[in-house]
Amino acid sequence: MSELPDTYKAVKLYLPSRDIRVEDVPKPEISNPDDAIVRIELAGLCGSDLHCYRGNEPFSGPFICGHEFVGRVVALGTSFLSANASANVSGRPELYSTLSLGDRVISPFTSSCSECQACRLGFFCRCTHARLFGTPTLPGGQAQYIVVPHAGGTLSKAPTDPSLPLGTIPEFALLLLADILPTGYFAALQVLNHPNILPCLTARPFPQLSPLLQDVVYAFWQPAFGAEDASLDIAVVGLGPVGVCALIALLDFLFPDGKTRLGPSTPRIVGIDPLPLRRTRAQQIISEYWSNVSVEFVAPEDAPEDTFNGVLEVVGSNNALALSYKLIKPFGVISSVGVHNNEKDLPFSGGLMYDKNVSLSFGRCPVRALMPLATDLLLRRRDIFTAIGTETALVERIVPLSEAREAYEKFDKGIWGKVLFDPWK
Amino acid sequence: MSELPDTYKAVKLYLPSRDIRVEDVPKPEISNPDDAIVRIELAGLCGSDLHCYRGNEPFSGPFICGHEFVGRVVALGTSFLSANASANVSGRPELYSTLSLGDRVISPFTSSCSECQACRLGFFCRCTHARLFGTPTLPGGQAQYIVVPHAGGTLSKAPTDPSLPLGTIPEFALLLLADILPTGYFAALQVLNHPNILPCLTARPFPQLSPLLQDVVYAFWQPAFGAEDASLDIAVVGLGPVGVCALIALLDFLFPDGKTRLGPSTPRIVGIDPLPLRRTRAQQIISEYWSNVSVEFVAPEDAPEDTFNGVLEVVGSNNALALSYKLIKPFGVISSVGVHNNEKDLPFSGGLMYDKNVSLSFGRCPVRALMPLATDLLLRRRDIFTAIGTETALVERIVPLSEAREAYEKFDKGIWGKVLFDPWK
Repeated sequence: MSELPDTYKAVKLYLPSRDIRVEDVPKPEISNPDDAIVRIELAGLCGSDLHCYRGNEPFSGPFICGHEFVGRVVALGTSFLSANASANVSGRPELYSTLSLGDRVISPFTSSCSECQACRLGFFCRCTHARLFGTPTLPGGQAQYIVVPHAGGTLSKAPTDPSLPLGTIPEFALLLLADILPTGYFAALQVLNHPNILPCLTARPFPQLSPLLQDVVYAFWQPAFGAEDASLDIAVVGLGPVGVCALIALLDFLFPDGKTRLGPSTPRIVGIDPLPLRRTRAQQIISEYWSNVSVEFVAPEDAPEDTFNGVLEVVGSNNALALSYKLIKPFGVISSVGVHNNEKDLPFSGGLMYDKNVSLSFGRCPVRALMPLATDLLLRRRDIFTAIGTETALVERIVPLSEAREAYEKFDKGIWGKVLFDPWK
Repeated sequence: MSELPDTYKAVKLYLPSRDIRVEDVPKPEISNPDDAIVRIELAGLCGSDLHCYRGNEPFSGPFICGHEFVGRVVALGTSFLSANASANVSGRPELYSTLSLGDRVISPFTSSCSECQACRLGFFCRCTHARLFGTPTLPGGQAQYIVVPHAGGTLSKAPTDPSLPLGTIPEFALLLLADILPTGYFAALQVLNHPNILPCLTARPFPQLSPLLQDVVYAFWQPAFGAEDASLDIAVVGLGPVGVCALIALLDFLFPDGKTRLGPSTPRIVGIDPLPLRRTRAQQIISEYWSNVSVEFVAPEDAPEDTFNGVLEVVGSNNALALSYKLIKPFGVISSVGVHNNEKDLPFSGGLMYDKNVSLSFGRCPVRALMPLATDLLLRRRDIFTAIGTETALVERIVPLSEAREAYEKFDKGIWGKVLFDPWK
């Protein structure tokens, strides 16, 4: 085990809100055989960090912030073969056999054991042991070091050999795999993979049974269906970094070669945000990489109602959900991946849901399950994700921890876009 | 066109509530070329008829009740070839060419043109012209005659030739195709066909992409997955006639030959209703036809929480939805097919939805799209659906219109089960 310092620097949020301090905290320690300690190379500041910052989400005391990080392993618990030659790794997640000191790793924003039934089903974010980094119960990544619980089930290895695909991807792009790229991907997937959307993708009418169920029946509804019926209208509500990732995932699915794969009906994609600056930023990125696809960017009040087959709601608020309801047409699907906190009951009645035959899919992205898909997207579209600091880059800037207070303030006000911290700068 | 009487008998509901009268009303008339007049053989009394009856759904004035009926065509508008040799039927729904006087027909509980985009997509219940029978805007089927709008797009022909499959099915069983059997089927389908349920059916983890989307990516999450992970727990909330149909559809999918098709994990099915009589009735039917499958029947307070992958909510109330939320486990799917009326906002916050990664699918069954699937089920399990008046029959009794007042009262109180009206008795 390498030498670890007695103290390290970390960004902490103090009660009641907006009180960001950079402090020296006691040295990291392995307290469980499955723990790993990671020396952080880069950490992200994410929209959901702002819930506690703004005081919208109650918290009990100061904590180390941040749930997005990449770094290198500097200490391993005794569950890991490389730390303990007699470790019992039989049947355990692969990393308990293969993870070594010095390996570069990416972490989803929640820990997961990869061993419970939820994990085996692919629902990692609802692991029995899942904890969210950067909360009072699990110190976060805006720091020089972090202790990762269930590390063999939580972390993914990022190859450092430049001959390997991920080896050529800079850390700031790998960091997008911790949360915002898989979460945007998840938002898109929950709409595009929904049975109510399939008619528009396949030009065959509802219902379409999954192959397993279809074996059961012999009769099937299969009338004439014109290509003009396969029109697909999708809105993305919220154009922060996750919303832009959702747009990218959506466009990558729908126009894999810059051309529609849906026959003569070109999908209509509309990005919606009340902030002109966010609309402009999103438009710059999308028009740069999908120059021959028309994507509209409008304010909420200018978005057409009763129009969309699917709405990707990446804000996480009752306002955004109420807007999503207005936007969809009957049998529409709302995918809501934002953190909803401290708000009252959903802003619509069962009667309204019935009247439009609405489907909704809520919740936290199971990052680890989507890691292969999101990584594939990152590699194929590295032109998008490896830009930095330009008008068409997802990552706007990398700052030292000492600028954390300013970064939170400016990110909160929408003045700064996606900000990362380099804790060694 | 056959002779029609000057008046006919019909069941009407008067303001403010519970005021059921059987009256003579003026003779039916074709007012649109697409209309057909049907002489009703049997009409159903359905749980959703009770919304106006109980005064829970406001209505403006007296109307003819009922949205379930089968009967024979006695008059056709000039859009039908058999009524007008020069009718333009080119490109129109098939029945405009083929429907003739005397044909036995089944109607979904809503009219649909079968020509607008919603219909072409299979979303018939949200047809641009959809109207619900048995409301102030469209007189219902608890009567001797009914005028069916967009009849070539709304009706389905029931073969009368006994050598044809449906020719051997009695009218009271055909009537189940108007609403409750397809609606129960829809409730089951929205759960079993959902991407979050597929891991339990296929023993492969989430996410599983529809084949079309899967072509786009090369990498895919595919770790070891044990048969024990494919456990599937499904609850049906509400054991009225639609709830029993939902159970039947569910069991027919999951145990097509009375054996599980899901490998070593036997799905757990639980029927939930506060009324002991309803639980007993449902249990009698299910145990008669699936004698070697264990289905539990419990009161809401005895149902296990955080347990079910899917909940079929066939009640249509905030209470039932709040219970459904308690019952599901993370990434669970709630299928809500009941009519929700006059209730406030949904009884859960976005935060609660996020915490369990809940998916919900709401709304009215597109009966016409499910007609082939529901008909297939009716024919294969005719042993269930052609029973009448026994303890294991879905249809409890057939009464004359003169008993309508009593039928509504007793059905409302749960004393009578499924009641049909024979308007000529």
